[in-house]
Amino acid sequence: MHVNSLVAVGWLASAAAAVAVNPLPAPRSITWGSSGPISVNDAVFVNLPENNSVLAQGWQRAWSKVVELQWVPKATEAPIATYEPFPTGTASKSKRDSGIRSVSVKVSDLGADLQEDVDESYTLDVKEGSSTIEISAETVWGALHAFTTLQQIVISNGNGLIIEQPVHIEDAPIYAWRGIMIDTGRNFISVPKIKEQIDGLALSKLNVLHWHLDDSQSWPIQMDSFPEMTKDAFSAAEQFSHDDIIEIVEYARLRGVRVLPEVDMPGHSASGWQQVDPSIVACGHSWWSNDDYAVHTAVEPNPGQLDILNNKTYPIVEKVYNELSSLFRDNYFHVGGDELQPNCYNFSSNVMNWLRADPSRTFNDVTQYWVDHAFPIFKKVENRKLVVWEDVIINDPHAPNVSTEGLLVQSWNNGIANIAKLATLGYDVLVSSSDFMYLDCGYGGFVSNDPRYDVQSNPDLASGLVNFNYGGNGGSWCAPYKTWQRIYDYDFTTNLTDAQAKHIKGAIAPLWSEQVDDSCVSTKLWPRAAALAELVWSGNKDPKTGLKRTTDLTQRILNFREYLLANGVQASPLMSKYCLSHPHACDLYYNQTAVV
Amino acid sequence: MHVNSLVAVGWLASAAAAVAVNPLPAPRSITWGSSGPISVNDAVFVNLPENNSVLAQGWQRAWSKVVELQWVPKATEAPIATYEPFPTGTASKSKRDSGIRSVSVKVSDLGADLQEDVDESYTLDVKEGSSTIEISAETVWGALHAFTTLQQIVISNGNGLIIEQPVHIEDAPIYAWRGIMIDTGRNFISVPKIKEQIDGLALSKLNVLHWHLDDSQSWPIQMDSFPEMTKDAFSAAEQFSHDDIIEIVEYARLRGVRVLPEVDMPGHSASGWQQVDPSIVACGHSWWSNDDYAVHTAVEPNPGQLDILNNKTYPIVEKVYNELSSLFRDNYFHVGGDELQPNCYNFSSNVMNWLRADPSRTFNDVTQYWVDHAFPIFKKVENRKLVVWEDVIINDPHAPNVSTEGLLVQSWNNGIANIAKLATLGYDVLVSSSDFMYLDCGYGGFVSNDPRYDVQSNPDLASGLVNFNYGGNGGSWCAPYKTWQRIYDYDFTTNLTDAQAKHIKGAIAPLWSEQVDDSCVSTKLWPRAAALAELVWSGNKDPKTGLKRTTDLTQRILNFREYLLANGVQASPLMSKYCLSHPHACDLYYNQTAVV
Repeated sequence: MHVNSLVAVGWLASAAAAVAVNPLPAPRSITWGSSGPISVNDAVFVNLPENNSVLAQGWQRAWSKVVELQWVPKATEAPIATYEPFPTGTASKSKRDSGIRSVSVKVSDLGADLQEDVDESYTLDVKEGSSTIEISAETVWGALHAFTTLQQIVISNGNGLIIEQPVHIEDAPIYAWRGIMIDTGRNFISVPKIKEQIDGLALSKLNVLHWHLDDSQSWPIQMDSFPEMTKDAFSAAEQFSHDDIIEIVEYARLRGVRVLPEVDMPGHSASGWQQVDPSIVACGHSWWSNDDYAVHTAVEPNPGQLDILNNKTYPIVEKVYNELSSLFRDNYFHVGGDELQPNCYNFSSNVMNWLRADPSRTFNDVTQYWVDHAFPIFKKVENRKLVVWEDVIINDPHAPNVSTEGLLVQSWNNGIANIAKLATLGYDVLVSSSDFMYLDCGYGGFVSNDPRYDVQSNPDLASGLVNFNYGGNGGSWCAPYKTWQRIYDYDFTTNLTDAQAKHIKGAIAPLWSEQVDDSCVSTKLWPRAAALAELVWSGNKDPKTGLKRTTDLTQRILNFREYLLANGVQASPLMSKYCLSHPHACDLYYNQTAVV
Repeated sequence: MHVNSLVAVGWLASAAAAVAVNPLPAPRSITWGSSGPISVNDAVFVNLPENNSVLAQGWQRAWSKVVELQWVPKATEAPIATYEPFPTGTASKSKRDSGIRSVSVKVSDLGADLQEDVDESYTLDVKEGSSTIEISAETVWGALHAFTTLQQIVISNGNGLIIEQPVHIEDAPIYAWRGIMIDTGRNFISVPKIKEQIDGLALSKLNVLHWHLDDSQSWPIQMDSFPEMTKDAFSAAEQFSHDDIIEIVEYARLRGVRVLPEVDMPGHSASGWQQVDPSIVACGHSWWSNDDYAVHTAVEPNPGQLDILNNKTYPIVEKVYNELSSLFRDNYFHVGGDELQPNCYNFSSNVMNWLRADPSRTFNDVTQYWVDHAFPIFKKVENRKLVVWEDVIINDPHAPNVSTEGLLVQSWNNGIANIAKLATLGYDVLVSSSDFMYLDCGYGGFVSNDPRYDVQSNPDLASGLVNFNYGGNGGSWCAPYKTWQRIYDYDFTTNLTDAQAKHIKGAIAPLWSEQVDDSCVSTKLWPRAAALAELVWSGNKDPKTGLKRTTDLTQRILNFREYLLANGVQASPLMSKYCLSHPHACDLYYNQTAVV
C-alpha cells in the first residue's frame, strides 16, 4: 500500500527532493541540473548597475545575510518515509568545483517606479561550470526579488557557502497585489515592529503593506492640520510623526514593498475626528448596543461615524486626507467604507432630517451622498486611484452608483461568492476573504461581560453537535483560526470566467488588532502570511501535475519559518521541530496526494 | 433601563471603584477605608526577619519594581458609563499626609519548606495615620505573596508613590495547587523564557510550574546515566543541563513557585529512550496511521511507547527517574500515564506474547502491569508522591487497581464529569479540563497534508450549521480558543458533595507545545493564566453577592496585562487599548450582572 502511494507522488521525489533548498514562494519556473552543489565565495564580486541605491542596498542586505547566517536548511524535502525500514536522511552531494566568484545583475529599466503593475519579473542563472551567478530583471523591483531568491538558495553545507547548480529560474508573480494588512487603530504597533513586518513581506516576495492607520478606538497620526486629533492617540508614545511615516514608506520601498494607507471613512470614525469637531461624528457617545441589537450603533465598541449630511464634515476630511496623501508615495489610497451602521445616524439630526425631507430616500442614498461628496475630494490628488471595502458596493446599505474607474474593491465576506459578484459588476477586486485570510480569527471574542462563556458542561454532548464553547466559534465571529493550509488552499477564482478572473488584482491578508500589538503582531502574521505569499506569487498547484502542492509546501514553509526567525522576524512554530527533520512524518495522510 | 442596571451593581461602584488599584488575584478579604491615598517614600525602610535570603531577595525584587516602574494603573475600575452625558474619569483624591516610611514584615515559621500545603496566607495593613505598612505571614511563602500584593497597590500618582489607605488585607489561597504547564518535548523553550513564565506565575500568585520535560518528539535533558538520550534533542543548543534545571528550580523557589517535573511514561515515549535501547520502545518506527484509524499507533506523530512487558524497560526507567529526581526539590513527581495506544503494542512481541499466553488478559492488565512494576520504583524516593494523568484511572485502557495513597490525578477530559468520577473513586484531583484550561486550543491542527482545509465555500451555508472551516473547530481537537472569561467562569466543583470537593487540590492550565516555542510561549500563556490565578486563589464570585465577578475582573486583568509587560513578561493584549481607559465600554451587555 505504502509503496503504491509513493509511486503516485513520483514528481515530488524526483524534483523537489533532488535539492536541499526550497525557496519560498516557489518560483514560477525553476530547473535544476544534476551536477550538484558548488561552493560560493563569501566575498563574491557583484556587478550591479551603477548609481542605484535600491539595488545596492538590496544586494548588501541579501548578501550580508547569506554570509552572516551561513544558512543550513532546517527542513528539506524528501519523500515520506517508508516505515519498514526506518528512514535515513538524504545524503548530500559533494563535488569539487571552482566555485562561484561573482554575481552579474542586469536591469533594463532602472527608473521604473514602485507602483501597481510595475514589472517584478527576474531570471537567475547558474550555468554549469560557470563562476558567475547571472541575474537579469526588467526593473530594480524584480532584481530585489532575485536577491531574495538567491539569499534563500545560497546555503551552507556546514563548511561554507554552496549553491546547487546548474539552475535556471524564470520568475514573476501571478498577481500584482500581494500583501498583509496591519491595524494601528485598535492597538498601537511601533515603528520597529512595522519594519519587522516589512522584512517578512520582502523575504516572502509580498509587495503590499496595507496600513489601516486609525479606527474608532484611536487616532495615532500626528497632524499639522489638526494637532488635536492625537488627543485620541492612546498615549504620547503611541503616535506616528510625519517622519515616522516617511521612514516606514522609504524602508518599505527599498525592499520592494508598497505602503497602502487606509483611513477608514465614514464608518469606524470617532477618535481624532471628534477632537476636530464633535458635530461631524454621529453616535460617538452612544452605547454600542449589541445587547439590544435592534438599536445597535456599531459592530464593536466604540461607536462613531462621520456625519455624511453635515457640511462641516467634508472640508475637515479633505484637509486630513490631503495631509496624509502627502506622506505616502503610492498612487492608491484606501478610503475604507466598511460596516456603515444606519442606527448610528439616529443620533444625527442632519441625516434624520434629510431622510425625512424626502420619504423615498434610504440609507443607500445616504451612502451614495458620501460617495458623491467625498470621492471627488479623494480623486483630486494627481494619479490617485482608490481602494474601498466591498461594503460600499454590495453591503446593505451601499451606494448604488459607484464608478469602476480607478477603483479597487477589497472583498472580505462570503468568499468566492462576493468576489464573483464584484467581478460580474465590473469592479477590480482585492481578495481578503475572511473565511480564508483573516489572520486574527479564532482567538475568541474580545468583548467583556459575555455570559456565553459561562457554560459548565457541553449541552450538546449527547447529540454530538458543536456549539459555542465546545468545538464551535468560541466568541470569534470569523472562527476558526486560519491555518497555513487553509490559506494556501484557497482557489479564489473558482467558477469565474477568464474575463471575471482578470478583475482579480491580488490578495491581502488582514490582521485586525483588537488583540494585537507589538507583543504578538509578528507571531500572528508569520509564517502564515508566507502561505499567502506563495499562493499569489506562483499559485498553489504543481505546474506539472496540476494538483495542489499544499503537502509539498510543508517542508518549504517549515524551513521558511526558521529563516524568518534567523532574519529577525518573530514567526511562530507550525509544528514540533521533530517534523522539520522528518519530512512528512507529521502528515495526516500517508497518501501524498490527499490534498488535491 | 440603564439606571436600573446600575443600581443592581451597586457593590461594584461602591467597593472596587473607590480605589485606583486592583490587585490580581483579588485578595480573599480586602477592606479599604475612605481617607484616601498617602505618599510612600521611595527609600522606604523595611524591617525583615534576619538571615532569610528568600524574603530579602523577594522584598528587593518587589520594591525595586515599585520604585522603577512608578506604576500608574493602566485600567482602573469604574461603573459602566451612562451615555448621556458622556463619562468622565474618576477624580483622584489628594490629601496631605506624613507618608509611609517603613514596612514591617513578621514571619512565624521561617523554616517552612515550599511544598504542597505550605501555609501561603498573609495579612497586610496600613492603619490610618500610620507611617508603616505591616505585613505578617506564617511562612516566607506567604510573605512573598504579601510583597506581590504590595507591589501592585503601591502606585504612582504621576508625582510619586502613593498607597490608598487605610487598608486591611487578609489573604490566603483557596487551593494549594495553582499552576501552568509548559511542554519542552514538542518544541524547545529556553531557560530565559522559562524564567519569564516563572515571573508571571509569581506576579499572579500562581505557585506551580508543571514542566512536561520530554515527549515522543524530543528528549532535551542531558543525562549522566545515559548521555546518548540527547541524541534525540532537537540540537546541541536545545538541551537542559543539570545546572540549567537546578537554576530554574531555585529561580522558581525564590519566587514561591514549585516545579513539578513530568516524564510522560509509558506512552508518549520514543525520543531519548530509543537511544538507550531501541527494544524498550514499541512502535517507534511505525506510521502513526490516523488515516487508517483502526491501526493508529499514536494520537499524533511520532509514535512510541515504553514496552511494558520488556524486562529491560524497568532498570532504564529507574536510572532515568532517579537521576531526574535528584535535580528537582518537590515531593511530587509527575509520571504521565496519558493516552496509551493499544495498537502500538501490536509492534511488541513481548506484549503480544503475554496477552496470548492468557486469553483473559486485556490491555487493562497491560496497564496494570506498568503500575505494578513502575510505581514501586517511583515511590522509592523519600517523601515521594506521584501525579498521573487521569487516563491511568479511567481511560480505556486503564489500570483497575491503583492506590489513592500519595497520588494526585490530573483530569483533562469531560470537564466536571471526570472530576466527579475521580473524586467519587476517592482520588485527589488536579483540574486541567481541556474545555476550559487548555491554552493551546483553537490554533488549528498542526499536522500537514490535511485535505479538510481545502473547502472553497461553506457547504452548510443554507442550513446555518457550523462545520470544520466555517465556525467549527478548524482542525483544533479542543477548539475553541479559551478566552480569559471562559477560564475564569469555570465552576469545577459543580454538583460535588463537600466530601468530593475536598479531593480537588487545585488546577493547572496546560500549554501543549506543538505550536509553541520561545517565539510565542509568553503571549499564549499571558494574561490568560492570570484569570486562572484568581479563580484558584480567591474564586470567581463576589464574596458579598455570591454572583460571578467576571465582569469585575475586566479592568483588573486589563491592567494586569500592562503590568506583566512592564515586568518583562510578554503578555498579549485582550482588547483595544481604548477599553482600558473606558471601563466597561467594551462589555457585551450594558447590564453589569449579565454573567451570573
